[in-house]
Amino acid sequence: MTAKNNAGWLKVVGLGPGGDALITPEVSAALSEATDVVGYVPYVERVAPRPGLVRHGSDNREEIRRAEQALRLAAEGRRVVVVSSGDPGVFAMAAALFEALEAGEPEWRDLDIQVLPGISAMLAASARLGAPLGHDFCCINLSDNLKPWALIERRLRLAAEADFAMAFYNPRSRARPEGFVRTLEVLRETCGAQRPIMFARAVSTPEERLTVTTLGEATAEMADMRTLVMVGSSQTRLIRREGVPWVYTPRSVLESVSGACSGTDAGAEP
Amino acid sequence: MTAKNNAGWLKVVGLGPGGDALITPEVSAALSEATDVVGYVPYVERVAPRPGLVRHGSDNREEIRRAEQALRLAAEGRRVVVVSSGDPGVFAMAAALFEALEAGEPEWRDLDIQVLPGISAMLAASARLGAPLGHDFCCINLSDNLKPWALIERRLRLAAEADFAMAFYNPRSRARPEGFVRTLEVLRETCGAQRPIMFARAVSTPEERLTVTTLGEATAEMADMRTLVMVGSSQTRLIRREGVPWVYTPRSVLESVSGACSGTDAGAEP
Repeated sequence: MTAKNNAGWLKVVGLGPGGDALITPEVSAALSEATDVVGYVPYVERVAPRPGLVRHGSDNREEIRRAEQALRLAAEGRRVVVVSSGDPGVFAMAAALFEALEAGEPEWRDLDIQVLPGISAMLAASARLGAPLGHDFCCINLSDNLKPWALIERRLRLAAEADFAMAFYNPRSRARPEGFVRTLEVLRETCGAQRPIMFARAVSTPEERLTVTTLGEATAEMADMRTLVMVGSSQTRLIRREGVPWVYTPRSVLESVSGACSGTDAGAEP
Repeated sequence: MTAKNNAGWLKVVGLGPGGDALITPEVSAALSEATDVVGYVPYVERVAPRPGLVRHGSDNREEIRRAEQALRLAAEGRRVVVVSSGDPGVFAMAAALFEALEAGEPEWRDLDIQVLPGISAMLAASARLGAPLGHDFCCINLSDNLKPWALIERRLRLAAEADFAMAFYNPRSRARPEGFVRTLEVLRETCGAQRPIMFARAVSTPEERLTVTTLGEATAEMADMRTLVMVGSSQTRLIRREGVPWVYTPRSVLESVSGACSGTDAGAEP
C-alpha cells in the first residue's frame, strides 16, 4: 500500500498547558479517533488509555526519532497523533516533524498530515497575569542545546533595544544552570533593574505558581524547566491587588515615548 | 452592593480564529453561564442568542468604552463575557480591559476578573502552514493607529537583525494603505528578496486563503485586515507538495550560521 491511498493520517497536536478545559474540541476529536499516540512520556500520559489505542512514550531529546516513528506508523495506515504540551508549533514537535519529513522517505510527503494548534504556555501564562503581551512582543527559547549561546544573547540585546515584551521558554535546567543567570544579567543591563519580570510555573495545573517581581529582585532559582518567564516592555504596568498584581502592556505608545526606546528603562514605573 | 460581595464576574475570553472546534471548553463554559456578552459586533455575533443572554455589540476602535461598560455591568452583579477573536491577550481586549480598570472606579479592582486564553490567529496560521514559528520569533501589530510609524519600522529592522521569524497583525486596512507597502520595502531591504512570506487569511473559516511566496514576489494587495502575515527567519525552509507548500523553521541553528546573522538573507534557500 502506498502512502497516497492508505487510510493512515498524522496529526501533530497541542494539549495546552495542562488543564483539560484548555484542550480544543478539535484536538479531543483527533485523540478519540487515533490508533497511536506518540510523544514525550509525560505528555503521552496525559492521554487516557483505552482499548485500540497504543501509547508510545519516548524520552526528551528524542524528537527526530519520535517524528520518524510517527511518520512510519502513518505510512503503515495507522491514525497517529503526536502530542506536544502547549502549542505544537512553539518550540515543540511540529518543527521536528517537518525536519524528519524533509529528510525522510519521499513517499512520506504524500501522507495526510495536519498540525492542530493548542493554547501555548505563553498565552496561558499571559492570561493568568493579565495582558503582559498586549503589545508587540518576542518569544525566545533560552536553551542552548540546539543553538549557540552567543545567538541567544544577541537576540536578548536586540529585543531589549526594540522594546519588545518578551516570553522565554526553557529558562533553566539542571544541565544548564548558568544560562539563566547570564540572561538576567543581560536583561538588567539593557532594561534596568525596575523592569517587571514574571515567573509562571505549570499554569492551569495543581502545581501552578505565579511570581511577579523586578529584574533587580529576580534570581535564577525562581525558574525551572516548567516555568514560562516573561519580561515587560518599558511600557508594561502593574495594577496592585490582593495577591499577585495584574500586569499589562498598554496598546498605545505615545509619540514622545517611542523616541526614547534606547533599550534602557525610561518607561512607566511599575 | 459593593463589588466585593456581589456575584458578578467578568471574563475576557478568546473565541479563537473562527472555527467552533478551536474554542476551548473553558471559554464555552463561560459563555454558557454569562448574562451579558460584550464585544466588537462580528465577534459578539459568533455567540448564539439564547434567553437570558444580552449581547452588546459595539464598533471597532471603541475598546475602552466597551471595557468600561463590561466593568460596570460586572459591578452591578452581571456575569459578563468580553469576547475577542483569537487570544484576548494578543492585540485584543485584555489590554484595553486593564487600561480601563486602572483608570476607572477604585471598587472595580475588587471584581472577580479572569482572562481565558484562546487560539491566536498567529498559532492557527502557523499550524495550517507547518511550523514557521518553530524557532525564536516576534509578533508585531502593523497598525499605527496607537503608535508612531517610526517605532514600527524600528522594530522591523531590529527583528530582522535578530533573525526572528515574524508574525504581523493588522497589516493593512483601507484607512492605512501605505504602511504595508513600506513594511514590505523594509523587509526586502533587511531580509532579501528570497525570504519566504506567508499570508494566512481567515484561517479555520470558509473564507480561509493561504499564500506562500517570497518577499520579492509579494505585493501589498495580498493582505487585508483579516490576514495574518508571517515572514521566515534566514533558516526557514519550504517542503514542496501539491498545493501550498509546508513551511517550517528548524529547531537548530548551527554555530557557523549564527555568526552570519546580519539581518540580510544568508541562510537556507527556500
